[in-house]
Amino acid sequence: MLGLDPDPGALWPVALAASPRSRLPDGPEAGAAEAVELAGAAVERHCLAAIGAAGPACVAVKLQFACFERLGARGWRALEVVRDAARQTGLLVIADAKRGDVPVTASAYAQALVGSTPTPFGEAPGFGADSFTANPLLGRDSLEPLVEGAAAAHAGCFLLVNTSNPGASDLQDLDAGGAPLYERIAELVDDVGAAHTAECGLSLVGAVTGATRPERLGRLRELMPRAIFLLPGVGAQGASAEALGAAFGPHPAAGLVAASRSIVGAHRERGGDPALAAEAAAQELRTVTWNV
Amino acid sequence: MLGLDPDPGALWPVALAASPRSRLPDGPEAGAAEAVELAGAAVERHCLAAIGAAGPACVAVKLQFACFERLGARGWRALEVVRDAARQTGLLVIADAKRGDVPVTASAYAQALVGSTPTPFGEAPGFGADSFTANPLLGRDSLEPLVEGAAAAHAGCFLLVNTSNPGASDLQDLDAGGAPLYERIAELVDDVGAAHTAECGLSLVGAVTGATRPERLGRLRELMPRAIFLLPGVGAQGASAEALGAAFGPHPAAGLVAASRSIVGAHRERGGDPALAAEAAAQELRTVTWNV
Repeated sequence: MLGLDPDPGALWPVALAASPRSRLPDGPEAGAAEAVELAGAAVERHCLAAIGAAGPACVAVKLQFACFERLGARGWRALEVVRDAARQTGLLVIADAKRGDVPVTASAYAQALVGSTPTPFGEAPGFGADSFTANPLLGRDSLEPLVEGAAAAHAGCFLLVNTSNPGASDLQDLDAGGAPLYERIAELVDDVGAAHTAECGLSLVGAVTGATRPERLGRLRELMPRAIFLLPGVGAQGASAEALGAAFGPHPAAGLVAASRSIVGAHRERGGDPALAAEAAAQELRTVTWNV
Repeated sequence: MLGLDPDPGALWPVALAASPRSRLPDGPEAGAAEAVELAGAAVERHCLAAIGAAGPACVAVKLQFACFERLGARGWRALEVVRDAARQTGLLVIADAKRGDVPVTASAYAQALVGSTPTPFGEAPGFGADSFTANPLLGRDSLEPLVEGAAAAHAGCFLLVNTSNPGASDLQDLDAGGAPLYERIAELVDDVGAAHTAECGLSLVGAVTGATRPERLGRLRELMPRAIFLLPGVGAQGASAEALGAAFGPHPAAGLVAASRSIVGAHRERGGDPALAAEAAAQELRTVTWNV
């Protein structure tokens, strides 16, 4: 899976080459508005180039919403442009937004990400993601509107179970009555996903399980036999795809390896053209993943 | 604090009165785009009317990002318009977005919410909130970029400690080595906030502590003596402001009572004009809160 977390300060040269020469701004505010507009357009070109290069070796793009939201409304427009390009390339679109809120608000997030919203002027379509990430800290009633919304849209969701960052251990590893908290979360994920299991045995409720702690995947697979595991942390965060076998146990589609900086930033290590480096890195990751 | 979580299907009549009569759409896609545009404009008018009516009795608006994001990029533009109106009325702006992610992404959220982003075209300003809500499940390293970003912008943040929904107990109440998880989170909040305490004794790192479980506030105040408590759940979720005394212990500004539906939807119970009902409800809540 191709992770797109564009940093406007580190875009591929091809994304900048097409930028019009910045006009003299009419003052600081006009300058800021122009910076946002030009950066938004450049982010779009960067992401489209990355999809063109690495997309054919991937099954999905994972859009890191934070990286777009820093350009405000212009960033959301870029999200929509990149979503459309990914879909035209045949890629699934995963909204990596890690939302989570009380039930009435969770319903609004479901409308925003995979559903639509009734208005007096007609139905307003949401982002239309094929799947999205969500944070389970608020408990079952906060997850049900997200899961129901995903089910109604024939989409999926991935709930954070054990994240890939070092600080994950601060709370997720706390002993919660004889088992670490992340195992309790895994039980909850399995439970809310049970009623939404397809014939192939996989549920629409998946789990984010960091690839950085592969020794936990066997136990997590026991606790969540139906969940697709979204496995971030390969590459830039130090994990290797070879160690992830347990994730794929029940079904070849039961694991999705997410790589962002190790694909889009591959030229920094390999040298050469960013697109060619990204294509090669994505192909290699695909080969390793299929052989796990 | 005035919570704004606009539902395009339940806007004040004044927000709809100004809408142009919907033209016949040129097809389903044009119809959807027009619905989004008209709904976005109506959401703006609704929020501006609510700010005009209830704002003078409040210190801040809390913008529920989910409710705007369901209109995509148009919703983000509405967020920006409402933010500007709130600021012109002298209100603080709290971005209720409940973000949380691994450190590199948390940095991007800090840029999006309170900071700015360097681009080849100049600095792109973020949303410019005075404070925002965040989810601590990913641990200390995921919080530090948010806290540092808030500090650099002279802004604040509120970390979820114990939320106001019934399902909060599923994970937050689990016994985590002799104390419930929410107390462990409270310890973490106090710890990351300690280095960012002002002369008045309050830290820029606050806590979301549901007003629906007031019996816990005394203990939470012990654990977080420096934190401003954001107290949601008054009104529509059944909590009463009178029971929240413990939150205000150390400082009159140490508690912020958030009410959304009980102000903006006050006319549903009281009858009459929505603006007058909202003004009265906000004034009453202000009086009760100041007397706690």
